[in-house]
Amino acid sequence: MKGVVAAVLTPMRADLSVDRAAFAAHCRRLLDEGAHGLGIFGTTGEANSLSVGERIEAWEALVADGVPADVLLPGTGACALPDAVKLTQEALAVGARAVLALPPFYYKGVSDDGLFRFFAELIERVGDERLRLFLYHIPPMAQVGFSPALIARLLDAYPGTVAGTKDSEGDPARVERICREFPQLTVFAGSEALLLDTLRWGGAGCISATVNVLAREARAVYDAFQAGEDATALQAELTQARRVVEGQPLIPALKAIMRARTGDDGWLNLRPPLEPLGEHAFASVSRVTLPNM
Amino acid sequence: MKGVVAAVLTPMRADLSVDRAAFAAHCRRLLDEGAHGLGIFGTTGEANSLSVGERIEAWEALVADGVPADVLLPGTGACALPDAVKLTQEALAVGARAVLALPPFYYKGVSDDGLFRFFAELIERVGDERLRLFLYHIPPMAQVGFSPALIARLLDAYPGTVAGTKDSEGDPARVERICREFPQLTVFAGSEALLLDTLRWGGAGCISATVNVLAREARAVYDAFQAGEDATALQAELTQARRVVEGQPLIPALKAIMRARTGDDGWLNLRPPLEPLGEHAFASVSRVTLPNM
Repeated sequence: MKGVVAAVLTPMRADLSVDRAAFAAHCRRLLDEGAHGLGIFGTTGEANSLSVGERIEAWEALVADGVPADVLLPGTGACALPDAVKLTQEALAVGARAVLALPPFYYKGVSDDGLFRFFAELIERVGDERLRLFLYHIPPMAQVGFSPALIARLLDAYPGTVAGTKDSEGDPARVERICREFPQLTVFAGSEALLLDTLRWGGAGCISATVNVLAREARAVYDAFQAGEDATALQAELTQARRVVEGQPLIPALKAIMRARTGDDGWLNLRPPLEPLGEHAFASVSRVTLPNM
Repeated sequence: MKGVVAAVLTPMRADLSVDRAAFAAHCRRLLDEGAHGLGIFGTTGEANSLSVGERIEAWEALVADGVPADVLLPGTGACALPDAVKLTQEALAVGARAVLALPPFYYKGVSDDGLFRFFAELIERVGDERLRLFLYHIPPMAQVGFSPALIARLLDAYPGTVAGTKDSEGDPARVERICREFPQLTVFAGSEALLLDTLRWGGAGCISATVNVLAREARAVYDAFQAGEDATALQAELTQARRVVEGQPLIPALKAIMRARTGDDGWLNLRPPLEPLGEHAFASVSRVTLPNM
């Protein structure tokens, strides 16, 4: 798992169920556009607005519909240990090579000891040596996060199993620190604005929401870096293109762009508490022409 | 639903499953000690650390084990709409007269429009005129809460169905405001330190974690108030007794007191990320003699 990974949007029908055909089509399009991997059912994918059963059913359908299981990085985080265990087991069963796990996020101010115990129980209850666990650090949303001390402790206790992290704290200095302090960890930045920096710091790439609409541009940065070329200008263009969603609620804005791109009104459906963009914001986002629209 | 309601602890076995026998025994003891109602599977009950299926199974067992269904106020909040619908339907099916619903708590900074839509979908999908919904306002934990404007809008749209609230913001002025502004709402304070004040403001009582160990004392305040007596001294004693858990993590401290009171080591089990008290804190809490220990 490396490179450009989309934090994949989940298309929904008017009744708010997952739109199976649109989901598979979107995933295939992202791969065609150059995404290396598909981070399904993370924050962008409205994972926590779906039941455990809905998530499992949707990713089974995705693989049945021809999306390769080995590019999937399913979100398997949950507040309840049995839910996290079930989601992780089913992700492995469907053929995913790694999973992205939120910390339990209901109780606030919990200790590293408590979080360590959660992940120790998770790993031991899953009991599958194929498990590769990516730690999903996103304090702006989950509030609860992974301190470097906790990451070190988990790596010590479960080397090989604790395999990576997505860092969405929004602090470049933290991504650099995690890359340097834990070279054995596959480190993804949570924004493609940090893609080139993360690669320079020895990280693996980015897992980002805006990759849903900028996969080609992000891939171009990655490929230029790998080819030893100067990717600075490409990164600047990517960072600029990403500004289309600035000041908008991210997930509704990305769905609005997908609506404009595909003509499919289904892209406007979101599970509450998320709301479609208002008319004005929708017009503003729809007017923007992204590089590959 | 009125008076003294315990935010019931969930006893667990060493394997972290719900201890059915201890749960029923604890609920019966609370009713014997004078609790009017049982708020099972709220924050204190570690609800979000249990799967939907575990919660339903546990409250079915509780009723099968002789705890009257009509004193139950089950927590049915969930981030995912289908989970909230399922929990609510099953709570009604088991005979609960009302349910306590958290707002969806993963996404932060969500709009009142989005929260309104969540509860509108919930009420309409449950589609049961028996439903009495209590709004669970606990921003210190859920971060997302119910603004007075949102409460007014829900009451307008679903009068009778939106029936009450538990206010655990920790601000007495807010409880007073909600009591005065929404006389049609059954208002519970989230702490028995506010029991007498809440009754004076026209509220219904309290739903509180420390009622697990102070049901008799809280009931005495309620009864004195109802009898038209001056309950000030009883309230002062109750507020003082409650200080036993001050400065400790609340749920582990209450489980430690239950361990001291019952001699059952099972009370020390908590689901991660919650952790048992350290040795020093445990000794300190255990030394305290509560009025009815």
